[in-house]
Amino acid sequence: MGQLIEQMFLPAFTPPGERAPIPHDSAAIAVPSPKLALSTDSYFMRPLFFPGGNIGGVSVYGTVNNLGMSGAHPLYLTVGFILEEGFSTKTLGRIVQAMRHASLQSRVQIVTGDTRVVPKGKIDGIIINTSGVGFLDRDLSISPLSVRPGDVILVNGDIGRHGIAMMAQKANREWEGTIETDSAPFASLVSHLIKSGVETHCLRDITRGGLVSTLNAIARAGKLTIQLEESSIPIRKDVRAACQHWGVDPLYAASAGRFVTIVPPSSVKLALEILRSQNPRSCAIGTAIGRSDRPTGLLKLQGDRGVRFLENQ
Amino acid sequence: MGQLIEQMFLPAFTPPGERAPIPHDSAAIAVPSPKLALSTDSYFMRPLFFPGGNIGGVSVYGTVNNLGMSGAHPLYLTVGFILEEGFSTKTLGRIVQAMRHASLQSRVQIVTGDTRVVPKGKIDGIIINTSGVGFLDRDLSISPLSVRPGDVILVNGDIGRHGIAMMAQKANREWEGTIETDSAPFASLVSHLIKSGVETHCLRDITRGGLVSTLNAIARAGKLTIQLEESSIPIRKDVRAACQHWGVDPLYAASAGRFVTIVPPSSVKLALEILRSQNPRSCAIGTAIGRSDRPTGLLKLQGDRGVRFLENQ
Repeated sequence: MGQLIEQMFLPAFTPPGERAPIPHDSAAIAVPSPKLALSTDSYFMRPLFFPGGNIGGVSVYGTVNNLGMSGAHPLYLTVGFILEEGFSTKTLGRIVQAMRHASLQSRVQIVTGDTRVVPKGKIDGIIINTSGVGFLDRDLSISPLSVRPGDVILVNGDIGRHGIAMMAQKANREWEGTIETDSAPFASLVSHLIKSGVETHCLRDITRGGLVSTLNAIARAGKLTIQLEESSIPIRKDVRAACQHWGVDPLYAASAGRFVTIVPPSSVKLALEILRSQNPRSCAIGTAIGRSDRPTGLLKLQGDRGVRFLENQ
Repeated sequence: MGQLIEQMFLPAFTPPGERAPIPHDSAAIAVPSPKLALSTDSYFMRPLFFPGGNIGGVSVYGTVNNLGMSGAHPLYLTVGFILEEGFSTKTLGRIVQAMRHASLQSRVQIVTGDTRVVPKGKIDGIIINTSGVGFLDRDLSISPLSVRPGDVILVNGDIGRHGIAMMAQKANREWEGTIETDSAPFASLVSHLIKSGVETHCLRDITRGGLVSTLNAIARAGKLTIQLEESSIPIRKDVRAACQHWGVDPLYAASAGRFVTIVPPSSVKLALEILRSQNPRSCAIGTAIGRSDRPTGLLKLQGDRGVRFLENQ
């Protein structure tokens, strides 16, 4: 354990140019702003490696992105490794390098960590928890409760690639031109939206359960009726083909690098300009058409053959 | 999942008198001081329940105590539940209630959380990660590097009870007058030491691997030779008897509610007065007798029959 910490974790997670700290139980760091955001997430993924990424990158981007979703500027992460006894040190090394890369790319620092080795058979391989600290410049009310009828739902690119990359790897199936995960950090893009004056009513990342789960969670919490325009939802052709092959609806496929932004009509133009500077497939996909009297809210899809309800799977 | 959050986690973790928040990915909180400490720990325990406690309490106290070990005042926790599909909701409820109790007792607030359900067989039951945020009033240099030859090693009570409680439960064995875990929060006791002017050079909780591991970690990081006085180390008679029965050395048994404090001779009297106000068995157990030229440091035990080295098991 001590060896792992000294030879793998500390070298990987010490910022370039700094000396590795003495291992200690917690990390003391400076606070740049009086308003703090916290987030935590545990990552259990199979397969561990897939086209374009691995559990290491996802575990950093995921928590960074969660913080971004509150409008916070992410700065620090803690990492908890839970390892099955005998887990390959070489594999762990590849995961740790991906975490290092992802944290440099996201400009967050992994400041403290913990490794728990559990007896063989008690877990399958590896689970990673990351918890993050970010800071808010000012009070924001980014919440499903801030969404108003008429607000527009935006997405920052095509959806479903992460889910398909995972499925393809599981099935050990290569598509013509492999579909890679869309996993990426987007907290700085969100900061940019907010700082540029986009009136951001709600933000949410598209993870487990895909676009439908994400929007149903917002509809439920905000007691909203949301209507999507099927033809506007950006899905790549190869993703659509893969989904058809597997009998999967792309609206339910995970998109690790995508989020929805809900803004009033007056902010749509500026928001899309900023989102498209990162990904030209960013677009408006629907509208919060009103309050819902159902306790679960309501998510509708307007397609060629009329309107249907989208429930979680 | 949504049901668990709304019906179990939010009611349990909302502070008394406050309204449960809207579920969201991260939590925004106020920062009372410009110096922040972070800590993370994952808890995999078997058995989940044992005399005097369960995994829920330990997972709160553990992270709170880790923060205390940096001299920080713990304020906020995040919690990550990793659950095997089909894990008993009733058992989870008992664990969550213990966490609620422990967080009220430790005066920390669980501000955000995440639940990951993994397929049956992929983990055994439940793993809990807690990450904590605390605040420091001022810069402290509490570290093995601050220990000086002549400094005295103090402990805040008798050791080994947590390890024995776990072993007894595993063996399904009741001792005459059950030995209960010593698991408890002690960060506020540490705050009290520091605020009262005790010159605290080093702090460390006694967890996995017992007193020996704790002191070896300090000896190694500070390149120190530490000598313990066997007859001074407080161990209850029943704990000693249980250890003998199982062929276990109590110096290696975990003590969830105990920590070592290393102070200069001038601070011993005041420190013991404060420690004893909480537990009369607090005492001095040894001394940092000098620098060690071995890269691992050195831990020695002075007993009836001479001096022996204590290596990690």
